[in-house]
Amino acid sequence: MSRVYAALVHYPVCNRKGEEITTAVTNLDIHDIARSALTFGLRGYYLIQPDEEQQEICREIIHFWQEGYGLKYNPDRAKALEKVKLTADLAETIEQITSQEGEKPQIVVTSANMQENTVSFARLRDKIADGGVYLILFGTGWGLTKEMLSKADICLAPIKGNGEYNHLSVRSAAAIVFDRLLGM
Amino acid sequence: MSRVYAALVHYPVCNRKGEEITTAVTNLDIHDIARSALTFGLRGYYLIQPDEEQQEICREIIHFWQEGYGLKYNPDRAKALEKVKLTADLAETIEQITSQEGEKPQIVVTSANMQENTVSFARLRDKIADGGVYLILFGTGWGLTKEMLSKADICLAPIKGNGEYNHLSVRSAAAIVFDRLLGM
Repeated sequence: MSRVYAALVHYPVCNRKGEEITTAVTNLDIHDIARSALTFGLRGYYLIQPDEEQQEICREIIHFWQEGYGLKYNPDRAKALEKVKLTADLAETIEQITSQEGEKPQIVVTSANMQENTVSFARLRDKIADGGVYLILFGTGWGLTKEMLSKADICLAPIKGNGEYNHLSVRSAAAIVFDRLLGM
Repeated sequence: MSRVYAALVHYPVCNRKGEEITTAVTNLDIHDIARSALTFGLRGYYLIQPDEEQQEICREIIHFWQEGYGLKYNPDRAKALEKVKLTADLAETIEQITSQEGEKPQIVVTSANMQENTVSFARLRDKIADGGVYLILFGTGWGLTKEMLSKADICLAPIKGNGEYNHLSVRSAAAIVFDRLLGM
């Protein structure tokens, strides 16, 4: 059983000009990535969001599907949203995982652009299968800031399609990353 | 260069009770799957939607990103949405592809549940690489109706994760299917 976690970072990320911003939560980021996380057996899916109003929106969405009308309408969705946890920053996320697993997670970053010293999907898949705890970070907006990228233990190679265009949504990118690392 | 198309079917699909319905368009289904389609080199992405009001909503969304303020804000998105075409049913979709390619597409269906005589991803990947025209159908709601599934030339194996849960969003499923069939 793999010990892999994912986190969707809302701060610090870049806007399209490369400036550091906090993004707003997107409803389907919560749902889609939670469903992918459960399908591929991740241990948890963190929303990293320091803004308190935004945190409240997250709680309302999760509550609706876990205890409100949503639970009755679609109980499968409640099960996926059990994976979702809310934290204010990376440090708190690492702390929670460390306390859960008794081991600090290796930080894996993803980026649509080629970085230095990237690790291939096949290599990381092997490492995960060997055991150890991993936290995969995904950036919202125009991606993780350089500062966040620099905190990584492992920088995963970008997803390559068939051409120059690589503007996948973070929801699609997360699905593909989980499938490549953990799919059967 | 592969000659693969995808279509997102809004009718006929099932609701959660298995009844035949027409679903409403989801904004992010258009965006996410268009971006994945362009990333993985698909030739086109059809929205199959017979409802005229719903068609009008699709046109408005596409217009906003291709000619409205969206084009200025995010020109990459306009490029992805060039892949999107609107048709009323499967017959019209097949007709358009046939006229474009000079060859009728093989119909590939996807389903979260195991069907009889499914083809593996590896096998279909090889077939695509050999040439030929393929149209991959994805269902909205609770999936394609039995009637739609019965029209397939090829029934693709379901995406397997690590457990029993397989309720991926159609956006995530499409991303994984394109990656498995066409990714590098």
